[in-house]
Parts: sequence; C-alpha cells; structure tokens
Amino acid sequence: MKWPDHGGQFHEYLNEIQQDEKILDFSVNINPFGPPIQMEEIIQASFDILGRYPDPSYRKLAEEIGQYEGLHSNEVLVTNGGAEAIFLVAQHFKGKKALIVQPTFIEYERACLQYNIQVEHVLLKKETFQWPFDEIVKKLKDVHCVFICRPNNPTGTLINKEEILALLIEAERFGTSIIIDEAFVHFIPDSERLTKWIHPFPNLILLRSLTKIYSLPGIRMGYCLSEKDTISALKSLQIPWSVNSLAAAIIPSLLEKKSFIQRTREWLTNELEWLQSRLKQLDFHVSNASTNFYLLKDPNHHSDHLFLFLAKNNIIARHTHNFKGLDGEYLRFAVRSREENEYLINVLKKWREEMG
Amino acid sequence: MKWPDHGGQFHEYLNEIQQDEKILDFSVNINPFGPPIQMEEIIQASFDILGRYPDPSYRKLAEEIGQYEGLHSNEVLVTNGGAEAIFLVAQHFKGKKALIVQPTFIEYERACLQYNIQVEHVLLKKETFQWPFDEIVKKLKDVHCVFICRPNNPTGTLINKEEILALLIEAERFGTSIIIDEAFVHFIPDSERLTKWIHPFPNLILLRSLTKIYSLPGIRMGYCLSEKDTISALKSLQIPWSVNSLAAAIIPSLLEKKSFIQRTREWLTNELEWLQSRLKQLDFHVSNASTNFYLLKDPNHHSDHLFLFLAKNNIIARHTHNFKGLDGEYLRFAVRSREENEYLINVLKKWREEMG
Repeated sequence: MKWPDHGGQFHEYLNEIQQDEKILDFSVNINPFGPPIQMEEIIQASFDILGRYPDPSYRKLAEEIGQYEGLHSNEVLVTNGGAEAIFLVAQHFKGKKALIVQPTFIEYERACLQYNIQVEHVLLKKETFQWPFDEIVKKLKDVHCVFICRPNNPTGTLINKEEILALLIEAERFGTSIIIDEAFVHFIPDSERLTKWIHPFPNLILLRSLTKIYSLPGIRMGYCLSEKDTISALKSLQIPWSVNSLAAAIIPSLLEKKSFIQRTREWLTNELEWLQSRLKQLDFHVSNASTNFYLLKDPNHHSDHLFLFLAKNNIIARHTHNFKGLDGEYLRFAVRSREENEYLINVLKKWREEMG
Repeated sequence: MKWPDHGGQFHEYLNEIQQDEKILDFSVNINPFGPPIQMEEIIQASFDILGRYPDPSYRKLAEEIGQYEGLHSNEVLVTNGGAEAIFLVAQHFKGKKALIVQPTFIEYERACLQYNIQVEHVLLKKETFQWPFDEIVKKLKDVHCVFICRPNNPTGTLINKEEILALLIEAERFGTSIIIDEAFVHFIPDSERLTKWIHPFPNLILLRSLTKIYSLPGIRMGYCLSEKDTISALKSLQIPWSVNSLAAAIIPSLLEKKSFIQRTREWLTNELEWLQSRLKQLDFHVSNASTNFYLLKDPNHHSDHLFLFLAKNNIIARHTHNFKGLDGEYLRFAVRSREENEYLINVLKKWREEMG
C-alpha cells in the first residue's frame, strides 16, 4: 500500500471501496466548531476586495496583527498559510545547517531539503515523547537553526515553556535561531504563547497558522513573528501578492473572536479527558496530548491493521509512516465532536472485541 | 519623489492630498468589464470549500485546465497568481543565466536576482518598441532561458508570432528555454496563443494569469504550461497548498466564459482605435498597443510633470521609472470605460492647452 503524504488524500482510495456511506475524517486537525465567522461576512468582504489587488506591502494588515500581538508591524510578516512561512524561513537559512526535533510536521524537512539545508534530527523519547533537552543543547553550536513545533504535530504534546526559555538562552550564545511553529497554539492557554519573547530574543522566529483554530484551511492564512531585520529579510524573499485579498480582509475580524477560542479550549479540555480515559480503558497507548489531536497505538497489533479496520468502518485516521521516529507505529486522530468521538470509541471497542 | 514599485501604491500619496474626490486609477491593467462571474457563484463555492484544505495535488483542477488548453494534466501547474509562476520558473533556473527583453514586467528581473540568476538584458527598439530579433538570437547560446512578455507589459505591443517560432527553433539548438508570459493573451485573438507549440517545443514554458482578463486580482489565479518533466520539476518547488480553495473552485467556471472574452475583445478593439486617434490628434506619442494598456509620452514635456498634472486632476497613471529602457520617459495607461477614457482625453486636452 502506498501511503500518501497527507492524510486527507485517502479519500481517493476509500471512495473506490465505498461511495455510499459517510466517511469521518479524523486525519485533519481542524477545529470542529467550524469557522467563527458568518459566511455573510466573508461575502460582504468579497464584494469589495476580490476585484482589487491586495496591497503588496500588506501594511495595514501587519499593523492590525502587530496590535493584536503587542508587536510592531515591522515584526510581523503575513504569509500564504503557515506553509509559506515555513518555506520562507528555510529559504532564509539556505545552504546552512538545521536541527529538527522529530517526529514532527514533515514540511520542515521538505523545506530544508529544497533549500540545500543540511539537516540533523534528534528524536523525542519513545512512548512518552518527552524532550531530549541535553541532546538538543549539545547540537546548538553545530547548527544555524532549530525547527520545533509547539504543541507538537503529530504527538499533540507540549514542551515545557521553561525548557524553551533555557534553550533560547543557550542558543543565543551560539547565534543559533530557534524557529517555533505555533500552528496549534490557539488550542492551549494564552500564557503558553511565546510572543513576549520576541523582544528579548532576536534569535526567536514564531510561525503561526490561522487555519486550524478557525477551520478555514481553504483561505490560506498564516504569519511569522520575529525581530524586524529577520522579518524584512523574509519579506524580501516573498513572491508579490502572495496572500489573497480574502485572507487579508478576514484576518483582523478573526483575531477578535476571543470568546470562540475560549469556548473551543473549554470543549477541548473536556473532550480530551473523556477520550483519553476511554481509550486507556480499552488498553490503547495514547500520547499525552494537550491539543486537538493525539497519537494512538494498540500494543498488541500493528497500526496498519487497525487503520484498515477503521477505514472499513468509515473512519480515516492519519497514518504515521512518514514521521521520523514513528514509522507507522501509531495512528493520529483529530478530536472531533462528541458524537463522532463516540462513534470512534465504539468502533475501537469492536476492534478490541474482535482482535483481542 | 520616491516612485513606488507598483502603480496602485500611489493611492497612499494621493489620498493625503485630496481625500474627497473620486480617483481614477489608470495604473492597474485589469478588464473594466468586471468579473464575469456572479458573486453568488463565488459564495456558493465558498460555503463548501473554504472549510477544507485544497487537494494538495490540485489534480482535478489541472485536468480541467488541461482539457480547456488541449494539453494533458501533467503539462499544467496551477499557481498562486501569475507571480508564483514567475518565481517558480526563476527558482528552476537558479544560479544559471537568463536574458530579459526589456522594458518589461519588473518581476522577471526581481525573481532572477532572488535566485542568483545572472541576467543579461536586450532592449526593444526606441519609439517603435520593435523586437531586436538578431540581437536576441545572438545571445541564445550564452543563456539558459529567455523571459518574454507577450503581449508585452508595459508597452502593450505584440511580437510577431513567426518571430517567436523562429526563436524557438534557434533556442532548441542550444537547449535554451523560452519563457513566455501570456498574462494578457486573453485580450487578443485566440490564434495568438502559443499553447499548440508546447508539444513540438519542450523548451517552451508559458505563464498564464487569470487576474487581468477576469478582473479578480484578489483571488490569485495563475498557471504554467510546459512539457511534463518541466512541470513536475516546478511542482516539486512549490509550497504545499499554495493555491487557495476559492481560486481552485472558480477557475473552471471562469474558463468557460468564452462570450465574456469575446465581448471584451470587441470592446477593446474599438476603444483602442478611438483612444489612439484622439491621443495622436493631441500630438502624444502612443505605443502600438494591441492589449488593454498603452504607453504615452508628450514629446514636448517630461512625463513627471504630466504625471503630477494628471494626479491633480484625479487620474493615476503608471510611472515608468523602474522599467529598463524607459526610465520614466513614458506613462502607462489602462484602457478603461469610454466615459473614463473620455475624462482622460479631456484632462489631456487641458494639459495641451495650458502647456503647449
């Protein structure tokens, strides 16, 4: 079986098997609360803006994001989704050396390879997915930058903030940049955001995506936060009009939806607890996730069998064959609505009953 | 005075002077007929798609474009506007040598510089903007690719198709790629498109933008046509989910609007004739444009003075200070509605009366 790079592409395979039933896609990590914006607002925005070029400097938008983040607009770069932010940062370090803490989002490595960055990897500890702090620190002097995802995709785990602080201090001694992808940071408490460390640490680069929390992956909205010279260097690498006008128009109103984010977090805390207790009762290993997805493995059976069993029961999980250090041992699931999570638990019960 | 890179940014300057009056922006080259699509269609598409990731391979979309163009889907790459197509092609030739036929769209050179491409320039003939064919052919053996805009921005002129054919034949002998940006090709007869030469000439790369003809620059829609190995190499350089879902959903229905394009062409032929005869009566030099914009200069006065006179009369022209070989000598104007073109002619009459 050929495993696709991204989870959702399994639709193509599955549709061939069963076209008549509803498929639940647990492979995509987006907020099931749906967009917090009325389609009417999007439409209203569309009328005015799709017929105009976006401002090539995105100046006003950067100002608004800066205001929201407590930063100056020249410390903000708006990007064509989080993906463009990753590739711009890689381009910024082209030909140099990077460290990637694995398993993590596969696009960091792909971006590094594209820009001839020599990549070293360190692995999270087996089973617990804890941080190999000493090992990372030891390599800081040999690399120009470190890619970290926090909360981490695909494990859902959160590295301790104090360890990040200690890493930033160490990294500064060697002039090593720390790139932290906060694509899922909206799902955890505000106090976990690292925005306030942009000013004390010019070697910190934060990547943000608005795709997951606001359930609008189709619009492509992301940004990058760092000190102004880094932002200006990244901006000089960006293609013109990279961010579409709809994204540019909608971002400010999305940032204001604080109660939506609060509601999402409350729901998530409950739902994670509910899920984890049930999954453990069924003797699955579950990662200690603090965000809207988690890793799961059955200690008794290979995940490929479980994957196919789930598929036959209309559930798409995310395989982990292309995550370094996981190599297919786990499956990743998004936290979805209670009803859908219950359906998943029931299918997993059936699996346990049938397979032992 | 600091001349901005793109015309529209003058709004910022002008708004400071006069905020109460309507400003006519002749600096942006988009079709004044407006989008041929009902906003309701966009909205309908939005409902379904903004909440989903675009298919990362854009396979179905490439198939639909391929069908429209008479090419296979693996000869099509969908891009985040025409701009991404330009930058991907430059990245494909990184570190090599390119020839640019100037004056032309400034992003070719910017993209080349970004990817360490050594650039040589040849200039169109003064006044007539005719092609220096022999000079281009002479340089073919020394470069890996040639950037050509056809119809050419900013002159609006169209290089003879037979000369392009002769160039392709010569270029093939040296393994030199010919990159032709057809961003404005929809404004001229179908027979001028070079799509049919993709199969006989594997060294031909065509760049397309759907921005100008369909007046939807905010959505960012472009694509690239070439033989399959080139397309596959360009695709491997593209960031994931580069094209937003709205663009992906709308492109097929836009391609079907053939009568809209026909109507646009009929209007343009009339309007260009009307404009050129009036402008010549007023003793301006006008480029022999076949598309929806033209260059104009007053042989008696420097264009900067004319630019400011127009601005005071609520007209924004596109300065040409950053076009090689023009150096500010001309101004570029979009062909707009008859009423707006009449207003322009009247302001130019006033200029002639006052300045002689």
